[in-house]
Amino acid sequence: MRKTLYIVSAFSFICFNVTAQRPPAISSPDVNPDKSITFRYYSRTAQKIIVKGEFLKSPLAMSKDTSGIWSITVPPVKPDIYPYSFMVDSIELADPNNTYVFANERFKRSIVDIPGDQPLIHSLQNVPHGKISYRLYQSATLGTTRQLLVYTPPGYNPNSKIKYPVLYLIHGGSDTEETWTKVGRANFIADNLIAQKKAMPMIIVMPYGNVRPKTMPDFTKEVINDIIPFIESNYPVLADSKSRAVAGFSVGGGQTLNIGLTNTDKFAYICSYAPFTATEEFQKNFTNWIPDADKINKQLKLFTISVGTEDFLYESVKKNLELFKEKKVNVKSYIVPGGHTWMNCKLFLATTLQELFK
Amino acid sequence: MRKTLYIVSAFSFICFNVTAQRPPAISSPDVNPDKSITFRYYSRTAQKIIVKGEFLKSPLAMSKDTSGIWSITVPPVKPDIYPYSFMVDSIELADPNNTYVFANERFKRSIVDIPGDQPLIHSLQNVPHGKISYRLYQSATLGTTRQLLVYTPPGYNPNSKIKYPVLYLIHGGSDTEETWTKVGRANFIADNLIAQKKAMPMIIVMPYGNVRPKTMPDFTKEVINDIIPFIESNYPVLADSKSRAVAGFSVGGGQTLNIGLTNTDKFAYICSYAPFTATEEFQKNFTNWIPDADKINKQLKLFTISVGTEDFLYESVKKNLELFKEKKVNVKSYIVPGGHTWMNCKLFLATTLQELFK
Repeated sequence: MRKTLYIVSAFSFICFNVTAQRPPAISSPDVNPDKSITFRYYSRTAQKIIVKGEFLKSPLAMSKDTSGIWSITVPPVKPDIYPYSFMVDSIELADPNNTYVFANERFKRSIVDIPGDQPLIHSLQNVPHGKISYRLYQSATLGTTRQLLVYTPPGYNPNSKIKYPVLYLIHGGSDTEETWTKVGRANFIADNLIAQKKAMPMIIVMPYGNVRPKTMPDFTKEVINDIIPFIESNYPVLADSKSRAVAGFSVGGGQTLNIGLTNTDKFAYICSYAPFTATEEFQKNFTNWIPDADKINKQLKLFTISVGTEDFLYESVKKNLELFKEKKVNVKSYIVPGGHTWMNCKLFLATTLQELFK
Repeated sequence: MRKTLYIVSAFSFICFNVTAQRPPAISSPDVNPDKSITFRYYSRTAQKIIVKGEFLKSPLAMSKDTSGIWSITVPPVKPDIYPYSFMVDSIELADPNNTYVFANERFKRSIVDIPGDQPLIHSLQNVPHGKISYRLYQSATLGTTRQLLVYTPPGYNPNSKIKYPVLYLIHGGSDTEETWTKVGRANFIADNLIAQKKAMPMIIVMPYGNVRPKTMPDFTKEVINDIIPFIESNYPVLADSKSRAVAGFSVGGGQTLNIGLTNTDKFAYICSYAPFTATEEFQKNFTNWIPDADKINKQLKLFTISVGTEDFLYESVKKNLELFKEKKVNVKSYIVPGGHTWMNCKLFLATTLQELFK
């Protein structure tokens, strides 16, 4: 845990003296024992600074001391990992003193981890740890080299005779291939559930789902034609549909539906989290869809759609559920409180992992 | 390469409509064919915006169009990877439209990659790629779980009979265990030099070097007592001094001298880049140092100190070199133009890798 004291290294002082540009090193955020959080920011010139966070109903103003350090202590917060940012006058920015940045292409926010009295399912616990590998692969579909992350479970050995099932796990619309580990802690969730014997040891593949300036259907092609073959030729995995799952959040939840439901011979598990489905690909696939529901229901071992009741996509997701029910495709809904957040994402993943490959 | 056009996904529009808070998606930075760079930032309220970058002698002001988009095109820049930031009025921040953030604990800057006409040594090239693994290990020295990154070379197989030499590569003072890959591209440099047969296939271990609130000597202990044993029990490596190297930049360059020169039985290669040595540990180790220079010179196959002539540590590094020469310890200096930068870091590493384990 971070110290509440201001920690200033000798090196910081040197740099400050040399460049005369760096602000003083301050500690922010500090998570206090009562789970209140103290945020700090240094500015001698700002007129107003507020903190915005997904643990707050509305932004809160910081106040300034005579040394130019602005701060606020927000009341105790429910243990979880939350994104937040500062609005310095009209400029939104990540907390400059917090190393943990939300991996995203559109915004720069920080994340703060409020530990539970008992370790949470996404917490670093004293259990065997899997590892995350950053891999480069050639995408013939997109004509470029792309990066994906691969979680291999504790005890994984590429040469053993054990073969693993694989979950393909897709991030949200402006996220990156790192968001599921850096914000979603998919690796710790898997480590903990595997240690508790609540989840099967599995490989989790976290691709980069954005294909701009190409169009979304290219990602479906990429998963089928490039990513799955790359994984299956480089890892000891089970290569049948009962050993493949696809899951994703938001835009990735929509991609999950497109990828999974047009390839039910390849994926027996489809888990869509708060899907964004206002896309041409979804319309094309499902507007005049005449599925062979009996066949699909036999192929799928699990088809679930999760959403929070305060999610801005809640009404849209309810319509998705109605559509699939109307087509007689068995779908399980998992409706919880909360919004379109990575707090819910972690909960959805922790729930899914316990249902896969059993 | 990024498109010069403004790319706005359907999802961005949706979010913008829903929250009315997100600025428009704009493209920044755009590296133009002539290697000029266009930076953009959206603000309707800012009075002045400047771009600061290590490719600029002094900051340059942006200008605003009628839609609130500020921009500037800076003249052609020498191909390399550079950190930069925006000063919006008095607030320094990373480019919100650039995903690539400088991995650092103190500041939030962006990085921009100017490709060469021919691929540079740190560029992604069409060669076999190694992989980077994020590993957790228990540090008995620090009483906590820590993370380090491990580069394994192309074709690496943990079960083959091939055993690899290991470079322990340490970041700068406020950097993180990710800075050597995310900013220094250590993995691409190694991939390319191995493909050209200019470097031996090796494992590169990138630990997290900061030990606050503990003191620097604890990191020396951690490397010897925790990190090396973790690597040597989990990877097929050669465990003799001729197969171990230590290198590092800035504060990590100072750590390299402390770790390496107090353990010449363990490291035959010591490569220090622009070392910061105004530390108690360095003083304690070297102020009244009476080395057995003959023995050390026999143990070490390479001891090199690199620095740029415009580095703010240049005079200090010259004193370090004098000290070691005075003590009759053979040290090779590698003096180049440039400052205390990650551009030079990449150059130093690319030079070092060609001299290791031969």
